[in-house]
Amino acid sequence: MLGQMQSHPLLISTLLVHAERHHGEQQIVSRRVEGDIHRYTYKDLAVRSRKVAKAVAALGVKAGQTVGTLAWNGYRHLELYYGVSGSGAVLHTLNPRLHPDQVVYIADHAEDQVLFFDMTFLPLVEAVAARLKTVKHFVAMTDRAHMPAQTKIPKLLCYEELVEAQDDKYAWPQFDENLASSLCYTSGTTGNPKGVLYSHRSTMLHTYAAALPDSLNASARDVILPVVPMFHVNAWGLPYVACMVGVKLVFPGPALDGKSLYELFENEGVTMSAGVPTVWQGLLAYTDANNLKFSTMNRTVIGGSACPPAMMEAFEQKYGVQVLHAWGMTEMSPLGTVCTLKPKHLKLSPAERMAVQSKQGRVVFGVDMKIIDGDGEELPRDGKASGELLVKGPWIVAKYFKGEGGDPLVKDEQGQGWFPTGDVSMIDTDGYMQITDRSKDVIKSGGEWIGSIDIENIAMAHPAVAMAACIAAFHPKWDERPLLVVVKKPGAEVTRDEMLKFFEGKIAKWWTPDDVVFIDAIPLGATGKMQKNKLREMFKDHKLPTA
Amino acid sequence: MLGQMQSHPLLISTLLVHAERHHGEQQIVSRRVEGDIHRYTYKDLAVRSRKVAKAVAALGVKAGQTVGTLAWNGYRHLELYYGVSGSGAVLHTLNPRLHPDQVVYIADHAEDQVLFFDMTFLPLVEAVAARLKTVKHFVAMTDRAHMPAQTKIPKLLCYEELVEAQDDKYAWPQFDENLASSLCYTSGTTGNPKGVLYSHRSTMLHTYAAALPDSLNASARDVILPVVPMFHVNAWGLPYVACMVGVKLVFPGPALDGKSLYELFENEGVTMSAGVPTVWQGLLAYTDANNLKFSTMNRTVIGGSACPPAMMEAFEQKYGVQVLHAWGMTEMSPLGTVCTLKPKHLKLSPAERMAVQSKQGRVVFGVDMKIIDGDGEELPRDGKASGELLVKGPWIVAKYFKGEGGDPLVKDEQGQGWFPTGDVSMIDTDGYMQITDRSKDVIKSGGEWIGSIDIENIAMAHPAVAMAACIAAFHPKWDERPLLVVVKKPGAEVTRDEMLKFFEGKIAKWWTPDDVVFIDAIPLGATGKMQKNKLREMFKDHKLPTA
Repeated sequence: MLGQMQSHPLLISTLLVHAERHHGEQQIVSRRVEGDIHRYTYKDLAVRSRKVAKAVAALGVKAGQTVGTLAWNGYRHLELYYGVSGSGAVLHTLNPRLHPDQVVYIADHAEDQVLFFDMTFLPLVEAVAARLKTVKHFVAMTDRAHMPAQTKIPKLLCYEELVEAQDDKYAWPQFDENLASSLCYTSGTTGNPKGVLYSHRSTMLHTYAAALPDSLNASARDVILPVVPMFHVNAWGLPYVACMVGVKLVFPGPALDGKSLYELFENEGVTMSAGVPTVWQGLLAYTDANNLKFSTMNRTVIGGSACPPAMMEAFEQKYGVQVLHAWGMTEMSPLGTVCTLKPKHLKLSPAERMAVQSKQGRVVFGVDMKIIDGDGEELPRDGKASGELLVKGPWIVAKYFKGEGGDPLVKDEQGQGWFPTGDVSMIDTDGYMQITDRSKDVIKSGGEWIGSIDIENIAMAHPAVAMAACIAAFHPKWDERPLLVVVKKPGAEVTRDEMLKFFEGKIAKWWTPDDVVFIDAIPLGATGKMQKNKLREMFKDHKLPTA
Repeated sequence: MLGQMQSHPLLISTLLVHAERHHGEQQIVSRRVEGDIHRYTYKDLAVRSRKVAKAVAALGVKAGQTVGTLAWNGYRHLELYYGVSGSGAVLHTLNPRLHPDQVVYIADHAEDQVLFFDMTFLPLVEAVAARLKTVKHFVAMTDRAHMPAQTKIPKLLCYEELVEAQDDKYAWPQFDENLASSLCYTSGTTGNPKGVLYSHRSTMLHTYAAALPDSLNASARDVILPVVPMFHVNAWGLPYVACMVGVKLVFPGPALDGKSLYELFENEGVTMSAGVPTVWQGLLAYTDANNLKFSTMNRTVIGGSACPPAMMEAFEQKYGVQVLHAWGMTEMSPLGTVCTLKPKHLKLSPAERMAVQSKQGRVVFGVDMKIIDGDGEELPRDGKASGELLVKGPWIVAKYFKGEGGDPLVKDEQGQGWFPTGDVSMIDTDGYMQITDRSKDVIKSGGEWIGSIDIENIAMAHPAVAMAACIAAFHPKWDERPLLVVVKKPGAEVTRDEMLKFFEGKIAKWWTPDDVVFIDAIPLGATGKMQKNKLREMFKDHKLPTA
C-alpha cells in the first residue's frame, strides 16, 4: 500500500527557489578575481541563475550534457552550480591545480560541452584549449571591461554578456531526482582520475544531513566562508547548505593568504569556515605574527587531511574557535563523519576533550561505516581494533563515471554494497572513527601495522617543524620501518637526535621512527595533500641506521 | 543520464539501525503506566523492536496491513513505532481522547488487524471491542503481573509475553520508500475524521528537516521529553528525530500534571520539550506556586495552537526557557514552520523580539507556503496582506486515506498541487508566517475580517482570565461582531466592563468585542483545541448590546 503524501522530486533547483522566497534579502559577498568586493542577495542569485540556465541552453547544452568550470569560490561559480544543475545539465568542476595534461584528460573524459573559467586560469585554458576534443565554447567569467585584449582561445565568450542577453523568465524543469547533477574527479594519485557522478537525490540528502546540528550545524544566523574550493567536492556541500538555511555567504575568491582571509572574516562577521589544514596554517601564522583575534568566528570545519593537534589547540585555546574535525571523500559527496561531541564529553578536561576531537568523528545520519579484517569480517567497535574502513549510504558512489575501474563495492551477507575507502581506522564504543592511516601508507613492521598519522602529529607539535611526513623505509629484518621526513620552519633549527628524543614518552618505542631526514619541501597534490608515493620514491634507497 | 550513487531507500528502520550502531548506549527513560520509572538503551530498543516485528507477523499481520495503538508516550509505544513500520506494516496511532464511537469508526475505517493498548485504556477498549469489525487480536501493553484478572475482551494478549516469545534474529526488510508507514486521523471537528497515510519517504524527509538547526535543532547533546502525545501526529516527529541524532529520550507516560512533568524534567536533565499550550499552563502553575526554576531545560516547542504571549513571556523572562513557536497539521506530518530567529532579530529589544516570536515562523526546508486571495491569486509577502494559507512539500498530504473527501489540492499555473490549510495568515518580508485565524473562525464584520486570535491573546494576558475564546455573534447591521467568551481563574474576579476596558489602546477600536460572557469551561476537542463550533452553537441566540 503506497503512502498518500505529495510527490516532489528532490531537485537542486528547489534550494534556490526556497532561498529566493524565504531568504531573498540575505547577502552573498564575494571577493572577485577583479580585486573588488561584490555584494548581492539570494534574490539576485536566483534571477541570474535562471538567466544562466537559459544562456547555457542557448549555447546548445542539452539535459544530461556536461559543463566544465575552472573557477574560484565566487558568486558567478555559484550561479553555475544552480543554473547548470537546475536546468538538468551536469556541472563538472575541474581542479585548476591539476597538471594541464590531467585537465585535458578529465575534460575529454567528461565530454564537457562548454568550459567556464575565471580569468586567473586564462593561461591554463590557452595552454589546453586546442587539445580539448568536446568543448564547443569557452566562456571567461568576467565582464566585457576585463576581457583579454587578445587571446589564443577561439571565439572567447564573455560571461556577463551571455547572462545579460537573457531574461529571467524561466521555470526550473521537474525531472527524476536520480538524474545526474554534477561530476567531480578524484585526485588520482595512482592511475587516471576517476569521475564521481552525483545525482540530485544524493546531493539533496547530503545537504539535509550536512546542515544538521551534529554535522555542520548551519543556521540562518550563521555567516559562512567556505575556504575549501568549489572545485573540490562541491566545497563540501556548503553552496547547497547555504541556500537550504539562508546563511550570509562569503566567498574569498583567489585570495587565500592569511591577511586576505582574516580581513574578510572580520569585515563580514564570519561565524564559520571550512578548509584543509594547510590554509589554516597560513591564517594562524598571520594572526600570530600580528597578535590578532577573531571577533565573530566561533567554529571551523577541518578536513581533507587530519588536523594536527597543535593547530587544533591553537584554534581552541588561543582563539576560542571550535575545531570540527570532518572526514569524507570525493566518492562520498563528501561528508562521512563530523567530530561533534556527546554529553559525556562536555565534562572532560580540555586535554581529554582534545583527544576525542582529534578523531574524525561520528557518522552523519545516512552514512554507515564498519572496519573489517583481512578476511572481510567486521571488527569490533572497541577503540582498539584497527582495519580497513568501508562505508555505505545514499550519497556514496556506486560506480565511477563510465564504469572506470569496474565495480568498486564489496558485498556483505545481506547483499548490500560497501565502498572501501582505502583508509585504515579504529571505531570506539561511542561510534567515533579515527583514521590511523591510508591503507597504502601504513608501515608494516614485522607483521604489525604502524600508523603514520600519529607519528606525524607528534612531529608537527615540535616548534621547529613546519611539515612532517612519515613513510615506510626498507629494513632487512622488519621489512619496513618508519622514516620521518621533516621540513623545518624558516630560520628554525632541530637535529635528527633532538627530533627522535621528542618522541620519548609520547608513543610506543617500536613506533618511534628509525631515522629522520630533512628536506626543503614535501610534494603536495592538487588538493593540498602530501604525496607520500613521491616521498617513498625519493627515499626508496635510503639506508636506515638500524638496518 | 542517471547519477552513479548508491541506491538506498529511505526507510524508518534505518533510523533504528543507526541508533543501535552509533548511539547504542544512549538512554531511553519512561514513566510507566505501572507507575515506576523504566530505563533502557537504544540497543535494547533495537533488540525489542525486532522482536515486536516478529511478534506482529506471528499474529498474522501482513505488509501493508494496519496495526492500531491506544497508548501514552513510552518505550513500548516506541517499539511499536519501529517494529510495525519497520516490518512493512502500517502503524495507526488512535487518539484515546476521542469519543468511543469515533474510535470505532476510525479503527474500522483503518481496518486495524491488531489493537495494542496501555492499561489506562482498558475500559475504553472493553467498551468498543465487540463493535470493532476488523481487529483480530487485542494486546495489553504490560507484563503478566499487571494483566487484568478478568476482562470482557476475548483472548486478551500480554505484550511482554508476545515480545519475549520471539528472538531478535530479524533483518529489516528493504522495500520501496513510497510504501505506507503510518496512519493518523484528523480530529474531524466537522464530519468524520479523515486519515492521513504517511510513507517511509515522507517520514524520513520530515525527520531530516525537523532536526535542522532552524527547526527543532536536535543534537546528541539534547535530552528531549515529548509531552505532545505519540498518538497526536507522531509526537511531531520526535520519536524519529530521537533515533536520527541519538538524544537521551524521556517519556512522561500518563502523568502530564505539572508536578510529575517538573520532576521528570529535573531528574533526567531534560534540555528540550514540546507540547500544546494547555499542558504548559499546568506546568507553569506548578512552578509558580512552588517558586521553582528549570535547571537544564533551555527551550520548548509550542504548537497545536498559538502560544499566548503571556505564557511566552513567562517562559523566557522568568524561567530563561526559549519558546519555539511551531505550526503544522496532521496533514503535514506535522511540521510546516518553526519560529527561529534571523541575525537581524538578535539585536532587537526583548519586546520587539517577542513580537517576532509570537509569529508561527519560517518554513522548514522542503515546505513551501503562500497566501491567496478569494480569486486564488498569490498575495504579497509584506506582513500586511492576509489570505488563506496553502502549502506544498514531500511530507504534505496528497489525498486522504481511501480517497475520502476527493482531491483536496488546489492546482497552480505550473500544475503543482497545494494543500489549503484552512488557516488565514500573513507572511512578512522575512518569510515569517502569522496565523490570524482559522478561516471558519474569522469574524466577518461589515465585509472586513477580524481575526479572533489577536483578541484572545489580549484577553489571556488579563490576570483574572484562565481561558478566552472570541467568536462571531450575529449583528443585524454588521452581520457578525466579536463576542468574547471568558473562563475566570479560580477565585479571580473581573467584570464585563473591566474586561472591555482592558482592550483599550491594545487593538483597533472596531476589533474590540461588542460583548463579554463568562462561562465555567470552554469545550475542548480530543487534541486540546477549543471547539469554537460548539461555542457558536451555545451563543447562536446571544443578543449583542450593540444590536
